[in-house]
Amino acid sequence: DEIRSVAREIVEKEIEKHAADGLGRVDYALGSAGANVVRHSEPYFDNRWGFLKKNTVHSDANKMLLPSLGEPGQCFALKSRNGFVEIKLRTAIIPEAITLEHITKSVSYDRSSAPKDCRVFGWFQSRVSDPIVVPRFLLTEFSYDLERSNAQTFTVDSTDLGVVNMVRLDFSSNHGASHTCIYRFRVHGQEQEPNSRPLLSLES
Amino acid sequence: DEIRSVAREIVEKEIEKHAADGLGRVDYALGSAGANVVRHSEPYFDNRWGFLKKNTVHSDANKMLLPSLGEPGQCFALKSRNGFVEIKLRTAIIPEAITLEHITKSVSYDRSSAPKDCRVFGWFQSRVSDPIVVPRFLLTEFSYDLERSNAQTFTVDSTDLGVVNMVRLDFSSNHGASHTCIYRFRVHGQEQEPNSRPLLSLES
Amino acid sequence: DEIRSVAREIVEKEIEKHAADGLGRVDYALGSAGANVVRHSEPYFDNRWGFLKKNTVHSDANKMLLPSLGEPGQCFALKSRNGFVEIKLRTAIIPEAITLEHITKSVSYDRSSAPKDCRVFGWFQSRVSDPIVVPRFLLTEFSYDLERSNAQTFTVDSTDLGVVNMVRLDFSSNHGASHTCIYRFRVHGQEQEPNSRPLLSLES
Ligand SMILES: [K+]
Ligand SMILES: [K+]
Ligand SMILES: [K+]
Repeated sequence: DEIRSVAREIVEKEIEKHAADGLGRVDYALGSAGANVVRHSEPYFDNRWGFLKKNTVHSDANKMLLPSLGEPGQCFALKSRNGFVEIKLRTAIIPEAITLEHITKSVSYDRSSAPKDCRVFGWFQSRVSDPIVVPRFLLTEFSYDLERSNAQTFTVDSTDLGVVNMVRLDFSSNHGASHTCIYRFRVHGQEQEPNSRPLLSLES
Repeated sequence: DEIRSVAREIVEKEIEKHAADGLGRVDYALGSAGANVVRHSEPYFDNRWGFLKKNTVHSDANKMLLPSLGEPGQCFALKSRNGFVEIKLRTAIIPEAITLEHITKSVSYDRSSAPKDCRVFGWFQSRVSDPIVVPRFLLTEFSYDLERSNAQTFTVDSTDLGVVNMVRLDFSSNHGASHTCIYRFRVHGQEQEPNSRPLLSLES
Repeated sequence: DEIRSVAREIVEKEIEKHAADGLGRVDYALGSAGANVVRHSEPYFDNRWGFLKKNTVHSDANKMLLPSLGEPGQCFALKSRNGFVEIKLRTAIIPEAITLEHITKSVSYDRSSAPKDCRVFGWFQSRVSDPIVVPRFLLTEFSYDLERSNAQTFTVDSTDLGVVNMVRLDFSSNHGASHTCIYRFRVHGQEQEPNSRPLLSLES
């Protein structure tokens, strides 16, 4: 009976976490909550991108800001082994961690398209269309490990960066494929108080 | 070994329930199974609603009748702290319980938009367009509690109401926001036998 | 404490499997990964099918190749108690097993539309439009059991069939309804090495 009650308690907690978007942690880069991709390197499935579409966002881009059912294909595929994506967050936050997620090993045809060496930058920008003149701060630098759990969370090292509403993921290598797929990218942190001032703001 | 087998048994049962739309209970208000919202108070995202759209149903309305992946935003947002939604069920049932679900605390930006004091009514109506002349019976009255599990089920008090195919959720308060979001509303019960007669029917 | 750690280990493993598309097994019939239905018997919701659409694929057909949230309705509905569906796989594989999944008992209005006696065939065909002159090999023959877990996996009996890229599900009976619903069909196996030769190929 004691076994039963302990086991049940653990199960309920873990399933609650699983049901809470897998992590149980607030995501300020969630596509259905107002965040979106604003710029990225060349996408995989688009031959005419170079000529016509340099300043547009690919229709698959927001797949990396949305949950899916754990099946292959629900990702944003970028051409080549290195590249970047810039994201406007739902709202300005003091960043605390980011999570990068690739598809689970057990249902995947091939995981060599996972990003490997990554750096994440953050800054504040009042309008997406403004030229970026503020410094971009390095939030974290990490290597995505195919042998670990598929959703990997990395802490932001410095906590006195002030608020950011823009985040950039730079990947300089992947796990071997000629293209790179990003399944899900999340940004965690604390919302700023209404009267706190963005340290890195264009207006400051 | 005994621990292992007990734990595994509990886990499998709980995951099965989780995989069964979270509750493992038949939902007669499920949008993809023929139920739909037929009338509601003023929606949140629609400035022209008052003038033009009083008799239309907002395109987000059926979000409250569909499962989602546990992320913010998959809800029907209504203007102000009180309001209502009327739902035509998939089929006529003897109602036994209703479930109201808001987003899980751990992934939510703000839960003050959750409904609080609610009353649910039921009745039978052969055509949605008929004027409602039948009495609406109170099925249950409850307060949604932000500290409990996010899917909260409330039993229908009386069981001799006969069959209903229409249900109305009235909320008279919420948890503090200026608007109210309904993430998921479900209706549980028993299907009537083909030859049973709706007690509250317009034709009776 | 030992109980806790054993229980936690089991829970994490089971949730990982659940999150991995329910089975934790690669699916070469996954619709979002390039597989698709190419031919099927008469669909349920289409009165004009016989006259106009004999050679088209119904818009619901690929629902049977996609995961859903465990709710009723996310299936491909076919007219009558027997019929077939032919699927082009994402890529050629040596088939090892197939999985047929109906809706979970606990959330279902009625499960009499589940397929019952089934046979699955496989073959290799370079173009879908080619006339089929190769033999179709029987991969497995089984009866879907409503009392077992809703996702049921059946092993391919012979393993020396060579590679296939086409699979056909034939059902000769169902569990009692006048129509038949297929919620999810998956095909498991090993991808061929690039230079292995399809044994059953049209070109061979
Ligand atoms: K995704
Ligand atoms: K929903
Ligand atoms: K499905």
